[in-house]
Amino acid sequence: MVTFLNMLKVGIIGATAYTSLELIKILLRHPEVKITYLGVRRTDRPRISDIFPTLKNLLDLRCDTIEQKEVPENIDFAFITLPPTISMQYVPLFIQRGIKIIDFSADYRFRDKSLYERWYKIQHTDSKGIETAVYGLPELFREEIRKTNLIGNPGCYTTATILALAPLLMKGLVFPEDIIVDAKSGVSGRGREPREDTHYCECNENIEAYSVGGHRHSPEIEHILSIKTNQKVSIQFVPHLVPMNRGILCTIYAKPKHEMRPASMILSDNEVNKLYKEFYGNEPFIRLKEGNEMPKTKEVIYTNFCDIATKVTESRIVVLSAIDNLIKGASGQAVQNMNVMCGFDEKMGLL
Amino acid sequence: MVTFLNMLKVGIIGATAYTSLELIKILLRHPEVKITYLGVRRTDRPRISDIFPTLKNLLDLRCDTIEQKEVPENIDFAFITLPPTISMQYVPLFIQRGIKIIDFSADYRFRDKSLYERWYKIQHTDSKGIETAVYGLPELFREEIRKTNLIGNPGCYTTATILALAPLLMKGLVFPEDIIVDAKSGVSGRGREPREDTHYCECNENIEAYSVGGHRHSPEIEHILSIKTNQKVSIQFVPHLVPMNRGILCTIYAKPKHEMRPASMILSDNEVNKLYKEFYGNEPFIRLKEGNEMPKTKEVIYTNFCDIATKVTESRIVVLSAIDNLIKGASGQAVQNMNVMCGFDEKMGLL
Amino acid sequence: MVTFLNMLKVGIIGATAYTSLELIKILLRHPEVKITYLGVRRTDRPRISDIFPTLKNLLDLRCDTIEQKEVPENIDFAFITLPPTISMQYVPLFIQRGIKIIDFSADYRFRDKSLYERWYKIQHTDSKGIETAVYGLPELFREEIRKTNLIGNPGCYTTATILALAPLLMKGLVFPEDIIVDAKSGVSGRGREPREDTHYCECNENIEAYSVGGHRHSPEIEHILSIKTNQKVSIQFVPHLVPMNRGILCTIYAKPKHEMRPASMILSDNEVNKLYKEFYGNEPFIRLKEGNEMPKTKEVIYTNFCDIATKVTESRIVVLSAIDNLIKGASGQAVQNMNVMCGFDEKMGLL
Amino acid sequence: MVTFLNMLKVGIIGATAYTSLELIKILLRHPEVKITYLGVRRTDRPRISDIFPTLKNLLDLRCDTIEQKEVPENIDFAFITLPPTISMQYVPLFIQRGIKIIDFSADYRFRDKSLYERWYKIQHTDSKGIETAVYGLPELFREEIRKTNLIGNPGCYTTATILALAPLLMKGLVFPEDIIVDAKSGVSGRGREPREDTHYCECNENIEAYSVGGHRHSPEIEHILSIKTNQKVSIQFVPHLVPMNRGILCTIYAKPKHEMRPASMILSDNEVNKLYKEFYGNEPFIRLKEGNEMPKTKEVIYTNFCDIATKVTESRIVVLSAIDNLIKGASGQAVQNMNVMCGFDEKMGLL
Repeated sequence: MVTFLNMLKVGIIGATAYTSLELIKILLRHPEVKITYLGVRRTDRPRISDIFPTLKNLLDLRCDTIEQKEVPENIDFAFITLPPTISMQYVPLFIQRGIKIIDFSADYRFRDKSLYERWYKIQHTDSKGIETAVYGLPELFREEIRKTNLIGNPGCYTTATILALAPLLMKGLVFPEDIIVDAKSGVSGRGREPREDTHYCECNENIEAYSVGGHRHSPEIEHILSIKTNQKVSIQFVPHLVPMNRGILCTIYAKPKHEMRPASMILSDNEVNKLYKEFYGNEPFIRLKEGNEMPKTKEVIYTNFCDIATKVTESRIVVLSAIDNLIKGASGQAVQNMNVMCGFDEKMGLL
Repeated sequence: MVTFLNMLKVGIIGATAYTSLELIKILLRHPEVKITYLGVRRTDRPRISDIFPTLKNLLDLRCDTIEQKEVPENIDFAFITLPPTISMQYVPLFIQRGIKIIDFSADYRFRDKSLYERWYKIQHTDSKGIETAVYGLPELFREEIRKTNLIGNPGCYTTATILALAPLLMKGLVFPEDIIVDAKSGVSGRGREPREDTHYCECNENIEAYSVGGHRHSPEIEHILSIKTNQKVSIQFVPHLVPMNRGILCTIYAKPKHEMRPASMILSDNEVNKLYKEFYGNEPFIRLKEGNEMPKTKEVIYTNFCDIATKVTESRIVVLSAIDNLIKGASGQAVQNMNVMCGFDEKMGLL
Repeated sequence: MVTFLNMLKVGIIGATAYTSLELIKILLRHPEVKITYLGVRRTDRPRISDIFPTLKNLLDLRCDTIEQKEVPENIDFAFITLPPTISMQYVPLFIQRGIKIIDFSADYRFRDKSLYERWYKIQHTDSKGIETAVYGLPELFREEIRKTNLIGNPGCYTTATILALAPLLMKGLVFPEDIIVDAKSGVSGRGREPREDTHYCECNENIEAYSVGGHRHSPEIEHILSIKTNQKVSIQFVPHLVPMNRGILCTIYAKPKHEMRPASMILSDNEVNKLYKEFYGNEPFIRLKEGNEMPKTKEVIYTNFCDIATKVTESRIVVLSAIDNLIKGASGQAVQNMNVMCGFDEKMGLL
Repeated sequence: MVTFLNMLKVGIIGATAYTSLELIKILLRHPEVKITYLGVRRTDRPRISDIFPTLKNLLDLRCDTIEQKEVPENIDFAFITLPPTISMQYVPLFIQRGIKIIDFSADYRFRDKSLYERWYKIQHTDSKGIETAVYGLPELFREEIRKTNLIGNPGCYTTATILALAPLLMKGLVFPEDIIVDAKSGVSGRGREPREDTHYCECNENIEAYSVGGHRHSPEIEHILSIKTNQKVSIQFVPHLVPMNRGILCTIYAKPKHEMRPASMILSDNEVNKLYKEFYGNEPFIRLKEGNEMPKTKEVIYTNFCDIATKVTESRIVVLSAIDNLIKGASGQAVQNMNVMCGFDEKMGLL
């Protein structure tokens, strides 16, 4: 057993979210870290195992009240799971104190401040942070992640969409401005707050679309894919709420560039599969389906895997991707990022 | 088609509950009534089909604001679906105006005012009402229902439990003070209000017990069964929340009185089945299971039926009953009561 | 009470499907018909209420064994809910005997025999029937339905898709060969047969796509829309299995023809809403959502309604439609067709 | 990283059950063992990750065909997850070869051969085994487990029931022959085989009781508790099927022995809580609820914990216990047993 002395001391700021619970469960299995601080925006200092009884006997640490302008003493590394626009009030203070940060909100996901401000309807108060932060998708930004001390952890829909589309777009095989993403998410994606639209009887035995033509995740997807592929990418994104606790499935319709080849022939399933195999090679958390196998959310929930399948049809290349919105879509990916930032084995705590 | 002239004009006071939606759906199919008034405790006069979009094109009536001391002009009959302790503020006014009432709350379910006050921790302000009201369980109180103008409509757990136990207790075959009722309910039983314990992710993939040893329905069950069977009945009642929208299953364990017969022999399955058949004879909404068939909530939801099975084991008579908590446990039973009160065919609108 | 003498005597051939149960429940509420025959492909003559205990006390009729070449004596009208390729063996016999038929299989949905044979991999043995049958979608083929004695009842996915797309295509506002249909269905769409892919634990907490790029419903959709709009319509159809009992949601992405108008301007939400309002006018079972309201399957299940919403985005017109796959997608639509064929009020038994 | 040389080589015989999947996931996290053999009763030698795609990249080992009379070469320890009456054909061969065994079936759970034969309606062919096997419930039989080479791994219902009742019965505080166990289980308890009663639409939105008064787990519970507490224990056991994938909740009603103390006073909640705390002391996988907190299956699924609460009411001591039927009710408990048998830390691989 390693002694605590040489373990990384991590804190979680905003410990009451569903993502925080998943993060804690993963970190408890991680041999190189120790959770030394839990910060919440309430003053009664509950034990985390009172908030999440499933943690009883696993982590009975008391939560501290996070005060503005105050940074906890006993941490080397912080996961911030506060809502957008709140995070940016804390991040600079932590950075100043030399604490490495992974922020779960949207506050540090955009390289372009004005884009953030247009979508989140608030002035961004940490220009330096937003400029230097790295987008925490290891499969695409591993080298930058290795060097940074501030990560904007990707959204769940964005992770599933970007991982599914990156190979096609970077190889220039599809039209970057005619992409349709039909996304389906479990209810935990709506957060823990009781609202009419999270009431059991309103969600159960029901599927519905929401934010049609205006979801905050679409600019994030377009922004990151445009930066990464040096072309204007624009997508039509429609999210749906599915009666299950967790899991995201994205069904993506991309239009192949026929002019690339003799009019007669189009890409074959094998060519596209081969392309994805080459692109993701030995990525530890990408699993490519073969033949007619399709991703199922039940095969990825409670894991950090992203399962991807592709199918070439007459008019489209259909790409399907599945992740656990709370793991690869949030907390698992955050730990994967921490592993890269700290030089641990990237899979540590995640298998 | 009957003309509206000779139709019963009904109003629903407190139209935003899940039970109200079910009540409206049933009344819309009822050939003898017309919904002429919907009262809500908000002031924006929404259409009922804005509150429940599933009603669009079926009932687009605007809801009126219910003012204390005011009684709507255009109704002959009122269903009151307000919370306990609120109902009793309205009922007397309606009664004075000669309007027949079925009240969904507990305010008029007890013959004994002090019992109500002990459990609901409030003084009952309508002594006359509580004394004259009839308990709206047609299978046991049909004659009284026929004559009254005020019904206390039974609770969902109580309906399922009383219908299951009445034959055994009235025949004196089991010990009235050693009865265990293990009840399971769908989430709609918790009401429409968003709370942590109605959040989809808290209810889904979970079963739990609540109010162990102190649920408000147990005194109601004991009170009604004691009155009806002229003996002190006391039950051990434990309700559970099950991840489904609707439906209640009660599993009841009663102890047979062995002294009634030679020590060697106990009651047989056939004897008990026969007893139930005789007791419920042609009751239109009671269905008795035979052999090893057991009630399933999926077979009674969206119906006004109560399915019952009995099984004699070494130490107990096990009785199982299933109903739809919103129909036979609330709105269907209310319409059944209205049919009896108004001299309509008891099944009208309910098949 | 109407006497049975003047009631329509209907039979159901293949009475053990989920659609048959829904059909029976609807017909039991229909004032003009009486169920006089139930045919099954087993020989033990079970009561229908033994197969579906929820029907106990409602319909306890015994099922007869359907013999090839034999037609029941006591029916005027038949609903055939046998699997594709089996139906066509029975239909001609019934027609000869002057019995009107609504067939639930795909056997009579195509005007083009070769198209059927290509997709169902079997020779169609009733050329006359397939040529004369009418496609049972009253909103588009009401007049033909009025005159025919043989209906091919539409599939569930096809109903939801065609009703959503017809207005845009018939007005020529979108490209008919660049349409994407992302469809989501509850598990009852898979039928009652126990298979690995209908096992509770395989479906629950899971969403997946299936038959990507080759589902039998897409040629049906293309065929009917092409006939109706006099142009070659081709769609990209991807169905998904959602963890709920019933309900279908289709999310449809159609590309507006910009050349129709000054490059600068595209269609507005209002224009499209207006178009749909005009197109469906007083259709009793079409409900159009307004503003940002989106269809929810929970608002249409257990009803014959099809709820539709449209949203104009930068690159697409997104159309969403929701139905109950067993009602408007099968049995409710069948009764709607029967009402039209027999001159009953089209809504009879369906509200 | 430990080298494989000094790792325990384990095989799983009957690798296609839901319990096998959970077992594999746990063993993959166990630092002291390596899965070297997977045996199935089919001959096509599939990869385990083809049977359970969620294992892809985690364990892609091929399954071997298990031949009668043949024992795999490369294992030190075997988990046998074959059905009852099949297991006993393999166990003796493995024992002869010095392989330690944990058997998941009922074949080795009874000390009394005749009791087994009465309930499983087959002659037990391994008398020596059934006499020497140890019942694998570490909280009650840890010392015997430490010394044995053959474990009969407890059933899921039995684990939840015995752990809940043991303290009361061993202290003699309740009548051993008047105990009611109302048990609720998720659908995975029914196994992976597609049957009508595991069809999604038959289980979803439904709760039902089954095997009322005759479930195979009740003799196992009575047998073990009678042995352990030196008195005849008899229970009334009624299992229910709940629409969720996994988890068991037992609600147990035991009658306190009033004669033990002055008629006036009965046991208090505190006394009973204190008794359970003393009894289970530092048991790593028992968590006792306090105050009015009740066990929730969602707090124990995917863990090896058993959560227990007690409540003293007028007539009964109500004990509630919750476990994951696949983990503490099967595979987690098996690994806990293996840890004890092999001298590993008992929690290894289980947190």
